[in-house]
Amino acid sequence: METAEIVGVGSELIRGETLDTNTAEVARSLRPYALEVWRTLRVADDPARLAQTARELWPGARLLVFLGGLGPTPDDVTTEAVARGLGLELAEDPAMVRTIEDRFARMGRTMTRINVKQAVKPRAAVWLANPRGTAPGWWLREGGRDLVALPGPPAEWRPMWAGLLPRLGLPQSGAVRRELKTFGLGESQIMARLADLWDAGVTSGIYAHADGVHLSAEGAPAAVERWMNEVSRRLAGHVWGYDEDTLPGQVLARLREQGATLATMESLTGGLLAALVTEVPGASRNYLGGMVSYSMGAKARFGVPTDTLTAHGAVSAETASAMAEAARRELNATYGLATTGVAGPDELEGHPVGTVYVGLAGPDGTQTKRYRFPPLGREAVRLRAAYAALALFWSHRR
Amino acid sequence: METAEIVGVGSELIRGETLDTNTAEVARSLRPYALEVWRTLRVADDPARLAQTARELWPGARLLVFLGGLGPTPDDVTTEAVARGLGLELAEDPAMVRTIEDRFARMGRTMTRINVKQAVKPRAAVWLANPRGTAPGWWLREGGRDLVALPGPPAEWRPMWAGLLPRLGLPQSGAVRRELKTFGLGESQIMARLADLWDAGVTSGIYAHADGVHLSAEGAPAAVERWMNEVSRRLAGHVWGYDEDTLPGQVLARLREQGATLATMESLTGGLLAALVTEVPGASRNYLGGMVSYSMGAKARFGVPTDTLTAHGAVSAETASAMAEAARRELNATYGLATTGVAGPDELEGHPVGTVYVGLAGPDGTQTKRYRFPPLGREAVRLRAAYAALALFWSHRR
Repeated sequence: METAEIVGVGSELIRGETLDTNTAEVARSLRPYALEVWRTLRVADDPARLAQTARELWPGARLLVFLGGLGPTPDDVTTEAVARGLGLELAEDPAMVRTIEDRFARMGRTMTRINVKQAVKPRAAVWLANPRGTAPGWWLREGGRDLVALPGPPAEWRPMWAGLLPRLGLPQSGAVRRELKTFGLGESQIMARLADLWDAGVTSGIYAHADGVHLSAEGAPAAVERWMNEVSRRLAGHVWGYDEDTLPGQVLARLREQGATLATMESLTGGLLAALVTEVPGASRNYLGGMVSYSMGAKARFGVPTDTLTAHGAVSAETASAMAEAARRELNATYGLATTGVAGPDELEGHPVGTVYVGLAGPDGTQTKRYRFPPLGREAVRLRAAYAALALFWSHRR
Repeated sequence: METAEIVGVGSELIRGETLDTNTAEVARSLRPYALEVWRTLRVADDPARLAQTARELWPGARLLVFLGGLGPTPDDVTTEAVARGLGLELAEDPAMVRTIEDRFARMGRTMTRINVKQAVKPRAAVWLANPRGTAPGWWLREGGRDLVALPGPPAEWRPMWAGLLPRLGLPQSGAVRRELKTFGLGESQIMARLADLWDAGVTSGIYAHADGVHLSAEGAPAAVERWMNEVSRRLAGHVWGYDEDTLPGQVLARLREQGATLATMESLTGGLLAALVTEVPGASRNYLGGMVSYSMGAKARFGVPTDTLTAHGAVSAETASAMAEAARRELNATYGLATTGVAGPDELEGHPVGTVYVGLAGPDGTQTKRYRFPPLGREAVRLRAAYAALALFWSHRR
């Protein structure tokens, strides 16, 4: 099988000051094709090292993609370094200079001299227009092989790559990959139920995420469908979605089906639950709003009875119930969803870090669920708590 | 300078089903040393490809670290593949077999045959004990150079690596790295002000993030200090922090200095502003809470005058003012901070995606600021808007 090589360019990627998610995303986009992606690289903004990388990877690659280092600053050196490494002649394109000037003018700014460098590409390459930024990419086809340079920001390279990929004429693999997403079972519990199905006719994968355990199957379409059906059956009641589904998206879809509305009140998640819901386009059709009751005063102001707080403490099933009911009442919503608990770093009211209560109030009453998440840090506990609240809504009986 | 090569092993890393943060973390741990880390790799669980990687990297490396692929399952092949690639003789260690057996016994389980493979290492290597898992690592020293294999889970390799690193006798660099964080200027504007300082006595870096543009300087301590001072002077009024500082952290620190409190009201950011603030440990000392006014009803319920909404629309300076004032009033806070605007994907009230107003109400009155962010997607616009609100607070005159 021919190989594809994917290189994330940027010194900040090496040490993780910026997280490299680009190379993985490009690798995923190559799934439908019969190309081996056996490694990905992150390389510093160093002209000599980038040139070396291009020289080492290009001879063996059907496809070589560089992401990043096309900006206007002095450490953006991808075009020059790759051209040098491969002995390609560079040329400045006056038409592209004007395009970049126009773009700056539209934003009410003047193009600075350093931006001219973004109008330089290998002479034999063609431009890839960047509708969302000043850095165009370029594409060079040589002997049935493809060399591509794209800017680093995902919002910029995604549409450019989506437009280019079908034009590369890469060999199709015929394989498909599907994913199934669950909540409420651990990895070992799932493996115990699926042991005989593992890698049976498909390549299986299992991954623990904050929104639950995801399973994947890759292989021939019919085998993958059979596998997905059998796994869905065995994990019934825990499967909340497939493929690109998100848990907030599923919650909003169910609200839409019911013609219902949602309001939230959050303590330990501090706005994260609301942020996950409102990340979904069109959320405003069914999500009315929320409250972050991060102080006793705010809880009282938002209608949580002071008696409940005094008698049971902020971290309790009773307070989670009262918060969910108050959220529903305050915004006149069909459902109220609430979180309270201990994100850390310190214990609260004698409860250890990771203690979480989620509450759901609706037309048929109020329910709560208690979790004790491993103390994997403030961020992880908060994220799991927010998803646990969404899972409580998703799994409730209507 | 000699080089260090860091390889994350695992097919799931290539396509990002698991995010590779290990290689960046090891790279950061090497900062105090005079070793070049110009690339990091993620390589699939493929014996031939791993062997090839070891063969390509080892000859030029002062230090070569593999992370992952030391487990008991058939796709854990690092030890065998690396040994094959470098022509190292493998040996099973009976003492390690017993150690693993004991460990299983303590967990009340029986060691399965497949775990025996974890007791195999290159004969010339020494074991690195893993106090938190069954997979030991190993370390081979050859001609003053070091080859290291560590398990993939961070909780397991971190203590192993922390114990090993000082024993490797790596050359100290004496270099330091510092970072400076700004808001309100673009990359090209900053470069225009700093052109003569670029890579002058230090290695400089510039990175655009949602919380503004970050600059870094790496080099001898005195040169780095000089550079940082000069850059701070030239960018005065725009520098909100250094090194590990975060914008929400800086906002909370200033509130603490003033003995002041904060409340928020969010429209387009939908809880994200509150979530950023409450991600900071101890936020509850100065952050009282917030409201996500995602519907007209919620805005009214939270005290935004209906007249203002009717006269000026939800996306307006007037509404941003009214929201900030309402947040302050509703929770009796010193300051109220608000966001409204258009996250997309669709226009709103005739305003294009990326139009954002942030508002700040305090003891000295109310101010707003208008932004027109590039339409880089819903997530990016929301994140920038949340940081813009924090920056408005950070930059206001007290």
